[in-house]
Parts: sequence; structure tokens; C-alpha cells
Amino acid sequence: MSEVAAQLGTPSYADIVAAGQRLRGVAVRTPVLEAPSLNAEIGGRILVKAEVLQRTGSFKFRGAYNRISQLTPDEKRRGVIAFSSGNHAQGVSAAAEIIETPATVVMPASAPGIKVARCRGYGAQVVLHDGDRASMEARTLALAEERGLTLVRPFEDDMVIAGQGTVGAEIADQVALLGPPPDAVLVPCGGGGLTAGIALALEARMPTSHLYTVEPEEFDDTARSLKSGKRLAVEPGGRSICDALLVPRPGERTFAINRHRVARGLTVSDTAVRQAMAALFGHFKIVVEPGGAVGLAALLSGAFDARGKTVVVVATGGNVDPQVFADALKAG
Amino acid sequence: MSEVAAQLGTPSYADIVAAGQRLRGVAVRTPVLEAPSLNAEIGGRILVKAEVLQRTGSFKFRGAYNRISQLTPDEKRRGVIAFSSGNHAQGVSAAAEIIETPATVVMPASAPGIKVARCRGYGAQVVLHDGDRASMEARTLALAEERGLTLVRPFEDDMVIAGQGTVGAEIADQVALLGPPPDAVLVPCGGGGLTAGIALALEARMPTSHLYTVEPEEFDDTARSLKSGKRLAVEPGGRSICDALLVPRPGERTFAINRHRVARGLTVSDTAVRQAMAALFGHFKIVVEPGGAVGLAALLSGAFDARGKTVVVVATGGNVDPQVFADALKAG
Repeated sequence: MSEVAAQLGTPSYADIVAAGQRLRGVAVRTPVLEAPSLNAEIGGRILVKAEVLQRTGSFKFRGAYNRISQLTPDEKRRGVIAFSSGNHAQGVSAAAEIIETPATVVMPASAPGIKVARCRGYGAQVVLHDGDRASMEARTLALAEERGLTLVRPFEDDMVIAGQGTVGAEIADQVALLGPPPDAVLVPCGGGGLTAGIALALEARMPTSHLYTVEPEEFDDTARSLKSGKRLAVEPGGRSICDALLVPRPGERTFAINRHRVARGLTVSDTAVRQAMAALFGHFKIVVEPGGAVGLAALLSGAFDARGKTVVVVATGGNVDPQVFADALKAG
Repeated sequence: MSEVAAQLGTPSYADIVAAGQRLRGVAVRTPVLEAPSLNAEIGGRILVKAEVLQRTGSFKFRGAYNRISQLTPDEKRRGVIAFSSGNHAQGVSAAAEIIETPATVVMPASAPGIKVARCRGYGAQVVLHDGDRASMEARTLALAEERGLTLVRPFEDDMVIAGQGTVGAEIADQVALLGPPPDAVLVPCGGGGLTAGIALALEARMPTSHLYTVEPEEFDDTARSLKSGKRLAVEPGGRSICDALLVPRPGERTFAINRHRVARGLTVSDTAVRQAMAALFGHFKIVVEPGGAVGLAALLSGAFDARGKTVVVVATGGNVDPQVFADALKAG
């Protein structure tokens, strides 16, 4: 274990294996998909880890379940709370329903309607918040304090990171059956929890494969932070259709893991994201939300040159409003 | 084996097992998906066999590969021919590419553009035919004769039926891990090849589960034939968005298998099909073409009452033009 890891108590690969055991029979072991038609178009071998087929329609269920399944009996009786643009909220709501603990989720008033409806469907109390991310977080902390609820953070939590890391462990298992280790793994990046979990899994299981984060152009905090070696925030006022990736600054814990393990941070435009959504529709027959399509967008836009390479892209979620999806098909 | 089966040389379950062995590592073992949110809405347990994730985007690859992999060396040298509205054509094209035999496919001029483009992508020669199904079949037979090509029929072929039957064998394997045998299996029905293959697999593996075909309202030939006990054709002039299911009369071989094994034939409207496509988008994050969504359409429309039951629906294909899909999302 490196010095940084020891200081911050970074989760180990053993924690990811333990998370995998907790998730067995509860989470979906999502398939890795391949489309010869897309391979021919790109001139490389593209493998898509389809987390859109995960319970709740995104990978976030993994981390949330791993965290909530380790509550003490007293914590479980009182319940959990989370703030999220949507997918983490759904993951927490669904995991809490299975574990039978009350859940409260604070979501931005602008969150896609489908994400809000699903949280309510899992029995969670939804609090819609009209304000920026910082004020949403502050309100959540206040509610947690006031009601004695356990906060399930979206990425700054070792158990959440270990849960997301099961995506990486599964990729390692699955691609081993398909040929030599991939050259690269591209991961959509918001706060960096999924990236951190996958980074730890790859370090243990596929150390020769390079890891890349992918972000929307105007939310390139991880790309810039990786380049400078310190946590930088984005300029305020940025916009993107990738509602799941609008985190302004890398997490402290996640960045400590990612800074030495990620080869480089890539960025993509909304136009490239829409094209990627249309390509995932046409070649793979899966529904991918904007933030989940940034990996393929990086290949299609040329931000990453996949010619002659084997590249895994993680399609992280599929919770997208019908109108947004229809617009992407029109553009793509 | 029943008398009818003996007369017609019906494929046996052993033929399906053999097909499964040929398809291993070539076809995708597609997942069975479940969405708690849809279960709650319907009040039953709905399991979706996602053949949209199959190679070529539909189950048709299975039957085509099983047939073409059994060509003699001489037949293989000369090549194969098929006529199809699209999915069988793609299955034949992709299987022929893998097996390295030349393929010619005759498709209606009205076939979805994506299906035509994909056949060409697999290296097949596409002949677009402007005329009805009977004239398309006649032209294909003439071409086969003229060029010495082996005709790969879409459903009237024991090897094709056995290949499609691997869907049923996989369902039996997969649902055994999930609980007691399902009450019902709903299968989209055109010529009846998939239904026949699944019927034979279920008879051997899940004999207590009832099998239902689902067709578009104006292409209800199988429903009416099952009711009357003899092969009836639809009235000419029927219309439906389910381009994959516009077969006017059940096959002779397939009907001999299906007539005593299918509980009943169900029918659905185009409106119900669009709603089902939207539901499969929202709950399962998969892209299903109109003909592939008729099973869920039967549940949502009330044609089949799934309350309190466990029902498998086969989502047979996902090859749909973006505009048709976007329209379904708007309607759903």
C-alpha cells in the first residue's frame, strides 16, 4: 500500500472482493457487449460494460448497497439520507428498500423526472432542492443532523468506492475470457468514485491496462486536476447535458486514489455525447443517458484514438427522459 | 414423439442441445432482465429475455448459424441465399461471414434502412425487391436455382427451428435460478419458428409453463389457426408497425409443432406496441423494435392478465430506425 493510501485509509482490493460477495444475487452482473459493426467503424475492438442493465439503471446501486448493508442496527433503525442529481439517489433508495431502512433523498429541482419518480417508487422520501450543489449538500447535512440519519455520500466513502470497484473486478473477469488485456479502460467521471473503485481493481487485476477518465468539456475538473497534480474546481457557469457528471471538483479521497492511477483525463462535447448515445442505440440496442455515453463519445470524437486497440468503455447509466433520448437520436 | 412429429421429422430436444453446442462462443447467451418498477406496475413478476443483445440485434442469428454451419463443403463454396424483412437477412449475413460462405439476401424495398445497411456491412449482397412476400419468395427461389445457392428458409427448416430453440433452453436454465417455473412464456410470432423451437425446449425442460404466441392484430394468422386447428391466412391489406411479424400464414412445419403446444394466440394493437417499447426503454434500458415488443404489449394492454403470475416475455430484436423509436417514446 502506498503512503498516501495508508494515510487516507484507501480501500484495498480485498474490500472490493468483500463488496462483490455482499452484492452477489442482489446486483446484476452486467454483461460486456461487443458489436462487430462498431468495431469495423472505429477500427478497434470496443467492449461496452453495460451498467445500464444494473438494478436502478446505473452502477450507483453497487456502492450504495455496499455502504447501507454495513449499517449498525441502530443506524438502520433511524435511516439514511443522500443528496444526488439522481442516480446515487436511486441507488440509495433501492438499497434502503431491500435492507429495510428508511431513506430520504435530496435532489435538485432540475433532476430528470424519471429519476425522481423512481426514488419515490422505491419508497424514499424525496426533497427537491432549488439551489447549487453546495447549498444542496449543506441542506442534506442539516437534515441528517436534525433527524439522526446516516449520510450516504456519493463518492467520498471507502465502502461506496469499494462497491463501485466491483465494476472493475467484473470487467477483469469478463475480458479475460475474450483475449489479451485491453489497452485502455474509459470511465465517465463526476466525483471520481467509480474511477477510484475501478482503479483499485485494475491495479490488482489488469495492471497493464491504462485508465482514462472522461468528462463533459465544461466540467473538466478531474482532467485539469490530474494534469496539475492538485484538486482544481471548474469555472462556475458551465453547462452540459450530462446531468450525472456535473461535479465541480474531484473528491479528496477519490483524487488521492486516482491521481497516480489515471493515465489522463479526456473531455467531450455535448454533440459528441449525443452521437455516442445514437451509436449505442444502433449498435448495441441499449439506452444510455448522456453522462453514461461519454466514454464512447471520446472514441467517436477522436479524443481517444482507439484504432488498433482494445478499449473498454463503461456505460454507467440509462436513466434518461424520453425527450432527451429522442433528441439524441435525431442528432446522431 | 407424437405421430405428427414423426411424419414431419420434427426436431427433438437433442437437436436443440446440439445447436447450443454449435452456438457456444459464437452467439451471445443473452441475459434475463427484471425491473422491480415494472413488476410493481403490473402486479406480477415479468422476466425479459433480451435477445436484442444477441449478435445482429435479434434471435435470428441462432437459427441461421445452426443451419449454415451444417452446409456441405460444396454448398459452402457456392453460398447461401435468404429472403427476409430484415432480421433473418442479418442473421444469415452475419453467420455466413463467420462461416466464410458468400451470402445473398433478398429484402423488401420497404425494409428499415438500418437492416439493409447492416447486411451489407456483414458482406452480403442485398437484392431489394418491390412486391409482396409471395413474389419475393418466388424471386429468391429462382435466384437460388440459377446460381446454385442453398436457400436458408426463415422458419420452415428443422435446423433453423432447433437454433431458435436455444432461446428456450437458455430461458429454462436461467429462470431455474430465479424461483419456481414461470406460469407463462410469451413469444412474438411471425412464421412460428421461434415459437416452435421454444415449444420443444419447454416441453422438455419446463412442461408446466404455458406458451402463448403474440401477433399484431391485423396479422393474427397464428391466433386464428390455433383456434380453428388448421392453417389460416390473414385477410390481405393488413397493416402494422411490426415489420418483423408480417407473415400472412403459419408455416406448415412450425404449425405442426405449435398447434398442440401453444395455449393460445394473443394479439396486440400498434398503440400497445409503442407503449411497450417506451416501457422497455424506461424500465429495462433496452432498445426493442416493434415486433420484439409485442409480448410486453400483451401484458400492458390486458390481452394477457399477468397479475400474481410470473411471465417470461421474449424481446426478440432491437433493429429499429431511430425515427420509429423516437415516435414510440413520444406515444408511450
